[in-house]
Amino acid sequence: MKISALLTSAGINIGLCVLFWSLYSILRKQPAFVKVYFGRRIAEERRLLREAFILERFVPSPSWIVQAVKCTEEEILAAAGLDAVAFNRMLVFSIRIFSLSAILCLFGILPLHYFRRNMHHLEIHSEQLHIFTVSNVEVKSRWLWVHCVVLYIISGVACILLYLEYRHIARLRLLHLKRATPNPGQFTVLVRGIPKTTKESCSSDVGDFFTKYHTSSYLFHQVVYKAGKVQKIMTGAKKACGKLDPSTDTTLDQSCKVITYRCCLCGASSNSLQLLPNDEVVQNIYNEECAAAFVFFKTRYGALVASDLLQTSNPMEWVTDLAPEPNDMYWSNIWLPYKQLWIRRIAMLLGSIVFMILFVLPVTFIQGLSQLDQLHQKLPFLNGVLKKPYMFELVTGYLPSVILLIFLYTVPPIMMLFSTLEGPTSHSERKKSACRKMLYFLIWNVFFVSLASGTVINQLNSSSTTKDIAVRLASVIPGQTTFFITYVLTSGWASLSSELMQLFGLIWNFIRKYILRMKEDTTFVPTFPYHTEVPKVMLFILLGFSCSVLAPLILPFLLVYFFLGYVVYRNQLLNVYRMRYDTGGLYWPIAHNTVIFSLVLTQIICFGVFGLKRSPVAAGFTIPLIFFILVFNQYCRTQFLPLFKTFPAKDLIDMDREDERSGRMEHIHHGLRSAYRQFPGTEDIKLEKILTVGNDEDQDEGHSSSEPTEEETCQDKEPRRDLSHPTLKRLS
Amino acid sequence: MKISALLTSAGINIGLCVLFWSLYSILRKQPAFVKVYFGRRIAEERRLLREAFILERFVPSPSWIVQAVKCTEEEILAAAGLDAVAFNRMLVFSIRIFSLSAILCLFGILPLHYFRRNMHHLEIHSEQLHIFTVSNVEVKSRWLWVHCVVLYIISGVACILLYLEYRHIARLRLLHLKRATPNPGQFTVLVRGIPKTTKESCSSDVGDFFTKYHTSSYLFHQVVYKAGKVQKIMTGAKKACGKLDPSTDTTLDQSCKVITYRCCLCGASSNSLQLLPNDEVVQNIYNEECAAAFVFFKTRYGALVASDLLQTSNPMEWVTDLAPEPNDMYWSNIWLPYKQLWIRRIAMLLGSIVFMILFVLPVTFIQGLSQLDQLHQKLPFLNGVLKKPYMFELVTGYLPSVILLIFLYTVPPIMMLFSTLEGPTSHSERKKSACRKMLYFLIWNVFFVSLASGTVINQLNSSSTTKDIAVRLASVIPGQTTFFITYVLTSGWASLSSELMQLFGLIWNFIRKYILRMKEDTTFVPTFPYHTEVPKVMLFILLGFSCSVLAPLILPFLLVYFFLGYVVYRNQLLNVYRMRYDTGGLYWPIAHNTVIFSLVLTQIICFGVFGLKRSPVAAGFTIPLIFFILVFNQYCRTQFLPLFKTFPAKDLIDMDREDERSGRMEHIHHGLRSAYRQFPGTEDIKLEKILTVGNDEDQDEGHSSSEPTEEETCQDKEPRRDLSHPTLKRLS
Repeated sequence: MKISALLTSAGINIGLCVLFWSLYSILRKQPAFVKVYFGRRIAEERRLLREAFILERFVPSPSWIVQAVKCTEEEILAAAGLDAVAFNRMLVFSIRIFSLSAILCLFGILPLHYFRRNMHHLEIHSEQLHIFTVSNVEVKSRWLWVHCVVLYIISGVACILLYLEYRHIARLRLLHLKRATPNPGQFTVLVRGIPKTTKESCSSDVGDFFTKYHTSSYLFHQVVYKAGKVQKIMTGAKKACGKLDPSTDTTLDQSCKVITYRCCLCGASSNSLQLLPNDEVVQNIYNEECAAAFVFFKTRYGALVASDLLQTSNPMEWVTDLAPEPNDMYWSNIWLPYKQLWIRRIAMLLGSIVFMILFVLPVTFIQGLSQLDQLHQKLPFLNGVLKKPYMFELVTGYLPSVILLIFLYTVPPIMMLFSTLEGPTSHSERKKSACRKMLYFLIWNVFFVSLASGTVINQLNSSSTTKDIAVRLASVIPGQTTFFITYVLTSGWASLSSELMQLFGLIWNFIRKYILRMKEDTTFVPTFPYHTEVPKVMLFILLGFSCSVLAPLILPFLLVYFFLGYVVYRNQLLNVYRMRYDTGGLYWPIAHNTVIFSLVLTQIICFGVFGLKRSPVAAGFTIPLIFFILVFNQYCRTQFLPLFKTFPAKDLIDMDREDERSGRMEHIHHGLRSAYRQFPGTEDIKLEKILTVGNDEDQDEGHSSSEPTEEETCQDKEPRRDLSHPTLKRLS
Repeated sequence: MKISALLTSAGINIGLCVLFWSLYSILRKQPAFVKVYFGRRIAEERRLLREAFILERFVPSPSWIVQAVKCTEEEILAAAGLDAVAFNRMLVFSIRIFSLSAILCLFGILPLHYFRRNMHHLEIHSEQLHIFTVSNVEVKSRWLWVHCVVLYIISGVACILLYLEYRHIARLRLLHLKRATPNPGQFTVLVRGIPKTTKESCSSDVGDFFTKYHTSSYLFHQVVYKAGKVQKIMTGAKKACGKLDPSTDTTLDQSCKVITYRCCLCGASSNSLQLLPNDEVVQNIYNEECAAAFVFFKTRYGALVASDLLQTSNPMEWVTDLAPEPNDMYWSNIWLPYKQLWIRRIAMLLGSIVFMILFVLPVTFIQGLSQLDQLHQKLPFLNGVLKKPYMFELVTGYLPSVILLIFLYTVPPIMMLFSTLEGPTSHSERKKSACRKMLYFLIWNVFFVSLASGTVINQLNSSSTTKDIAVRLASVIPGQTTFFITYVLTSGWASLSSELMQLFGLIWNFIRKYILRMKEDTTFVPTFPYHTEVPKVMLFILLGFSCSVLAPLILPFLLVYFFLGYVVYRNQLLNVYRMRYDTGGLYWPIAHNTVIFSLVLTQIICFGVFGLKRSPVAAGFTIPLIFFILVFNQYCRTQFLPLFKTFPAKDLIDMDREDERSGRMEHIHHGLRSAYRQFPGTEDIKLEKILTVGNDEDQDEGHSSSEPTEEETCQDKEPRRDLSHPTLKRLS
């Protein structure tokens, strides 16, 4: 690709960006779209914009950018949680390291590539891009030591920055742990794999076990039963009452109360409950198999100890884990038998691998597009169009990335499905698993397959086949710069703009309002899609490192992406997305590992390049660097990783004592009784009555329901708080 | 190699075996060698043979074989511990699976290889060995499905056997845990990474921390100081008193008492202690840095909880692990700063890898020997000798393995050194680490490098290079059968005989007795060298699986090896080696993983072979098999592995309660006070007096000493029990 084609591509994207950003700065001021652009603010801060027609509303303004940049880390932490801060630090890290790389590579390395001795230069705009890559350096060049030194500087600074960021996030995680308002999850253990006993009920089994083996810290427990008839009845009733009057209620808080008073099962008065076939319900609950149980402990330390230990000699029974936060619970999976999980995980791993491999087919086809001669053969009707020089540049420089991007849009839902089928019990675990899958997917399909299906590999294959992987990568990377730069432009810049515009949200809002004529649903606010955005940023970091020394022309484009991303994501985290749950910074270790992987890959590629250019000194010097990075990674693992896997006992004990001293513990224990509600459509007292009618023994119940996932619509947190159904067993 | 050469080789080895075994059955009856052949019995059971000259003593007899085979698993467990049982189970597993393989392969597959259509057969003794391998099967043969079916049967049966064995060992481990006499290690946590504080002493820091954060279960603690002047003085004194009179004492128990009464420092009367420079000692102890501490808990459960948790927010401080058994303590490493360990581990990993790679050089040279034309070039003076056909067969069939064997003798000490430098705090951990290193070493250097340096690979390299690894392995395996069979004969059979004969022990015994004229040292009895024997058996299992279907001729030789090994190792475990410590079956997961690796490798190789023979159906059918094995492995990991990593809380709590109920707990707590003795040359009361002279505060001490490793001579368990130095801090 020529420079001019690159400029065309860049021009299109800059145009799109300016257009989208201007549009956004107008649209965000329109009251009609306030739901789309200020979801979090409305839901959490109850702030609304005045509706008034003033000219100001239709003039693009950059004030939101200033706001996004100015807000402090504390504000982000308060508004969007530690995960948002960790994500923000990924962007800050990228900006820092790639600013340095850009300065070093553009001023130190690019001239070496361009001003090769005895070379005839064309006019700058018709130069081929590879003139600016390492492939333009002579074999046995004396200047390769510059590459080597720059590689050392970048790797060293990256390590220092990584260390500082890791330490920072680890500190924040500890602060987060301490500062948080009492989190029921810290006192609660989710028990799975409860063995069947024939005589007694499951609930008394759980009670007996923990009374016997965790005597001093056990408080009470709450059993989760498998979804059964009760749940079906309830779901049916809920649907019915949803149909009764979907349009009368206007505000969030009223809407659910309306349902409550209309419907007999979703929590009505005690009189109306008499309508239910009580005996059947009770009978049913006893017949159901016990799926899991929440066990509540007196102290955080007690829960930590119970969750950390292997309980019995059968590792598949009495499996204890710290329970997720109540909002984080993914109820649909809780009834899965624990014995199934390992095979589910393997099946989903296999599924993901097969999916990744099959996805290679479209990617390969797309890469073929960038070779125009193949395109002529495959799509002969395009011949006329492609003869125009402008179209030619558009097709080779831009089209492949766009097609790839469209294909890529189908991936996150599929990965999310795989992660759901794995059987996690929390939304955050599910999202984290999807994030990891997406990351592998992108690195594999965008980075490696793009390289493998690129042009240079074909030439290599025919001529010399005994080369190492390092050498292969080394020869391919400079050739694929074109693709990577356009990928940054399309997938990076353009998708940021579309993220800012919330295209899907806008369209959906429009359809709901004007076509379906549904009432505005202010209660549903999406959570931040870490599983798509973290892998995206990580992929760009990988591209940045691996191209930095060899093809530095990509760096300015990348740097612009990270700056834009910094602004856009901060804005979105503050205004659009809502924090329903928080992993406490668990995305950072994923990011850290990816950066380490990128650095090592970069060094391996450079080793190959130096080998190809027959510079044994430079090649030799990269080996200790690889070793150094791996040692550094091990250091970070020993130093910080344990904090991301468990909680330090000392801090938890201190918190427990502080709460006991101040008398807050009683209050916390009381709060635990209503913390976890499996089925959000009923109230405590009502259902307890149903059950005690059938049986006087104070028995625990709970009903699993296929709770709607976070992306679904009608039910959400607030209504769940009002209408709930805990059914606890008190320690008598 | 021809069949006749193989028979020569086998003949030599059978002769050697018969000779050695007959010699052994005579020598074991000689009173002069009773120390060599009945070390464990003498040391533990105090049984001695009558010394009488009867003819029976000079007639070989097979009674010991009967004894070795007859003894039950309980007897082995009692005499040599759970590790010995696990090792025994590895041999039993091998015998079972390879008996089946031998039957299937010799009667099902070997005829298919030999009776190829349209083939002219020579006389059987001059047939080349490769006639019996899969390389003699025609391309596109219809008979490859037999190979595939046999592979399925072997893999399936291996999985069933593996599962049963794993379950058996896991059960025994639990029983071992419960049945064991109260083990101080279960009540004790080894704390490392104690942070420095300027004001108070290290001991009070430890006391404060555990009193504060493990209030209910903390009992008392004992601090380990870094080796300092005290230790130097003591070592000096010990040496001096050793020189005083090394020859007077005749029996084990007397010998050490003699020293006790002679020497002022190794535990004398209180009067003689006044000779010591008390002030200096005390001063010194305070100046020393605190290295580690033993913290004792009231219950096993308390110790388990304390060892499992992350104590503080700094993962490098207050690191707690369950302490090894007292006999298992490796005192020399205990003073290593915990912060160093991770880098030590990396350095040793790197060291091992470099060592493994450098070792390739002699192996390659040896493999070259089996190609005679190269030998002629390199060692021209041998030409005359090599022309004799007998010598020719000897050199090609036997010499390479012998040379390799001699080189291999140097490896275990080096690997042990690497493992020691890693900084483990127990002998068993050190041995396990060395075992793992040896295993990787053998698999890499004997299996893979032998294959890579073999003849066939050279031909491959020149002709076709784009083949997969599977295909490469597939084409090399049948060609290397010669080497593998002779390796089984030399390294397997012969080394078993030398193990039985205890050649080193015999020679050393002879030198001590008749040349150095030293007194007989009955106290030193070696422990079983798991780090050399487990990898050896595992390597043979790998050879067995990978050759079974492709070159079944190796199986009878291998089967003989496993039968001989079964007899020899049981005999040695019962009579020669002593159990000083026990990992509780932790070698089994290593064995399990190696078998899984062998199975998968076999299947990959078969996949390659079927591909080479152009049988897509057979090749296709091996892929689900690989997947099945990996799923099975994952199942075993989830089902059994947690039991080998920690102890189940339920069982420990039950044991604690049982002990409390029966009043044994008091007794156990009392025993803890003298359980761990860092410096074995002094008595409690004596040194406590020294210290309280200098400072009235009840201060803890201990002195690290470079305690002799188990292979060393003078000090051993028994004397350590008599003369000891605990210096404990009681909880006031």
